[in-house]
Amino acid sequence: MPLVVQKYGGSSVHDAAAIKRVAARIVATKKAGNDVVVAVSAMGDTTDELIDLANAVTSAPHPREMDILLTAGERISMAILAMAIRELGVGAQSFTGPQAGVITTAHHGSARIIDVAPSRVQKAVADGDVAIVAGFQGVNVDNQDVTTLGRGGSDTTAVALAAALGADVCEIYTDVDGVFSADPRIVPAARKLDRVSYEEMLDFAASGAKVLMPRCVEYARRYNVPIHVRSSFSYLEGTWVVADQEEGDTMEEPIIAGVASDRSEAKITVIGVPDVPGSAARLFEAVANSGANIDMIVQNVSATATGVTDISFTLPTGSVDAAHLAIEEDRDAIGYEKLVVDDTIGKISLIGAGMKSSSGVSAKFFAALRDSGINIEMISTSDIRISVVTRSEALDDAVRAVHTAFGLDSSDGEAVVYGGTGR
Amino acid sequence: MPLVVQKYGGSSVHDAAAIKRVAARIVATKKAGNDVVVAVSAMGDTTDELIDLANAVTSAPHPREMDILLTAGERISMAILAMAIRELGVGAQSFTGPQAGVITTAHHGSARIIDVAPSRVQKAVADGDVAIVAGFQGVNVDNQDVTTLGRGGSDTTAVALAAALGADVCEIYTDVDGVFSADPRIVPAARKLDRVSYEEMLDFAASGAKVLMPRCVEYARRYNVPIHVRSSFSYLEGTWVVADQEEGDTMEEPIIAGVASDRSEAKITVIGVPDVPGSAARLFEAVANSGANIDMIVQNVSATATGVTDISFTLPTGSVDAAHLAIEEDRDAIGYEKLVVDDTIGKISLIGAGMKSSSGVSAKFFAALRDSGINIEMISTSDIRISVVTRSEALDDAVRAVHTAFGLDSSDGEAVVYGGTGR
Repeated sequence: MPLVVQKYGGSSVHDAAAIKRVAARIVATKKAGNDVVVAVSAMGDTTDELIDLANAVTSAPHPREMDILLTAGERISMAILAMAIRELGVGAQSFTGPQAGVITTAHHGSARIIDVAPSRVQKAVADGDVAIVAGFQGVNVDNQDVTTLGRGGSDTTAVALAAALGADVCEIYTDVDGVFSADPRIVPAARKLDRVSYEEMLDFAASGAKVLMPRCVEYARRYNVPIHVRSSFSYLEGTWVVADQEEGDTMEEPIIAGVASDRSEAKITVIGVPDVPGSAARLFEAVANSGANIDMIVQNVSATATGVTDISFTLPTGSVDAAHLAIEEDRDAIGYEKLVVDDTIGKISLIGAGMKSSSGVSAKFFAALRDSGINIEMISTSDIRISVVTRSEALDDAVRAVHTAFGLDSSDGEAVVYGGTGR
Repeated sequence: MPLVVQKYGGSSVHDAAAIKRVAARIVATKKAGNDVVVAVSAMGDTTDELIDLANAVTSAPHPREMDILLTAGERISMAILAMAIRELGVGAQSFTGPQAGVITTAHHGSARIIDVAPSRVQKAVADGDVAIVAGFQGVNVDNQDVTTLGRGGSDTTAVALAAALGADVCEIYTDVDGVFSADPRIVPAARKLDRVSYEEMLDFAASGAKVLMPRCVEYARRYNVPIHVRSSFSYLEGTWVVADQEEGDTMEEPIIAGVASDRSEAKITVIGVPDVPGSAARLFEAVANSGANIDMIVQNVSATATGVTDISFTLPTGSVDAAHLAIEEDRDAIGYEKLVVDDTIGKISLIGAGMKSSSGVSAKFFAALRDSGINIEMISTSDIRISVVTRSEALDDAVRAVHTAFGLDSSDGEAVVYGGTGR
């Protein structure tokens, strides 16, 4: 019998009525002849409410206690969901992360999954029941305490369960219909993608698309778990995230999957850094020690006359203050003139696995931006992605211009760019 | 170092501000030179809200899932309390019932404690930390699933921990100052009792006093755990619940501890039951199978001319419908004429360990009721308690009359009835 792992996020289970709808969908999947294992997030705003409660009693919640607190959220949703499924006449058993055998590192709040030993889940499925597993949680391999997986944790739980159980598919239910060629709020003509590769999806995720977190996609790629991203509000096919195509198939694949955009980053420019070996290393050591994840880096071509250079990098807006402080504290060792923070940037990324075998993509991308009068501040590329930093206010125009230039608009279906060379 | 186990109920931890007050009290106890272990209930209305949520998705919540759901409540309160204690500079670790080693039967919703193996709690205390334990929960000895202990569960958790840890005292914090000689809402002159025996407390609990549940007192009596019932809103001494006095001490003990009153029961009268062996047994088998706990039973002196008799019994109001149905379903086998339900009764109980060595107590009790014009409908006695059923509307007058007759009014301190014989 096929085994389907489904994941429902907080917005899909935000109240009792929503949970009943999810239960009906699970029962329909079961009755269609599948074994079903479900990973579920906490209901709606539960996690935020619990965080507020913690903040009301302490300025620095202890990480172990915070994880104990937050895991109450999935405990509630999983039990209610199991009850709602039983109400429809199908057996269901709920399991916490520890009970489901999700074994993690000891890093409370951002634990990594080490192993999954889902014997209780397997037994429930063998008994003909639907197994409901709390997303986002695991058990500390060192001492059996509960841990949480941090951002994207519930998706990762679902993929990890699918991998450990050898599931046929991992369905990630969300509030959108799938992965789009661009953000539909910016580009109304954006198309839902039927299929993207793990690599493309990783670049989408790293470039601002919120539908799946990179860690979940990485896990799926490593264990080759097919992901089906789809809406919990419809029965439409969503987007399949699968392994890259065999060589023979690529002729039919579009070069470009889509355009991602991101306003969540800021730019720090460090001016007047001595152009000597070690200065940049010292700078980025300080930033790394502050806990910030750097995205793009640009160093000016050094002006030999002055012997100094400018270095710009982007990082999540939420990390700016800590990074800023870390650099200032190390000012003497780095030896720079001044530091400028710019939080009005936007990043546009063009993503497509076909790009690596196709020339001229970059030229077309830059031409589209130029023709729209959009200034490029930073550039970074990988073999399947080109990213550019612009002014935040120019970002939406940039996305629309590029989306159109590559024939991605759905009203322009004939013009979709298919594989080949020389374009 | 003395070891104090403290228990805080839902009203003592109903919001963040209340939890901070409780944390301050715990820290004060710790800094006064005690090791401290705390059992905590779910915050305020959390349990009711979770039950409402379950009822919104199913008419018959599965017992295992219900326990998973409800145990989220203490998970939240225990983590927040541990954080609040840490905020005051004292180490604290929280533990679920399973983590604290509270091993129970498999009866979800009303599990009984089989054993307590609190090694993690002991380690936390040895490390100098306050250990916070989720009340009301345990772990199913058969399969490691979480269980709940049912009504009075958190008090029982505290007493069971105190017994297992060899604590010097188990402090039960509540929203009243202790155990009173009568309900102060009915008898303004009611006195707080400094000390009652386990046996008296059991009779108080069985007679409508809500301050402690019988199972908790029974547990304390079995393991000789001194309980100190006190208010979480003051630092006043409350009421000590301890072993009965040695013989030499009884002279100084009052004969009568107090007067309890109860409006939570109803009376079912079964009219025209054949006066033959087995009829009553059949009747009470039917009631027992409905799950109702019978309190008092009265059978009329049989009228030999008719060959039938009437049987009245009291039971919790909430059990009336089920019992009623069970009796009707067994009507042919029992063979009665009709069944009358009366839910306007009240029960008054006079309680005192000294009663067993003192004559004349019953006579004085009945005289006080007679002088107040109160009719007695049913009577039951034990060696330290006399209970009487009256009309509900007469109950408060009855309590006041008896409280005064036995010299229990606090304005009448000199008249407190002390032990001895012949009164």
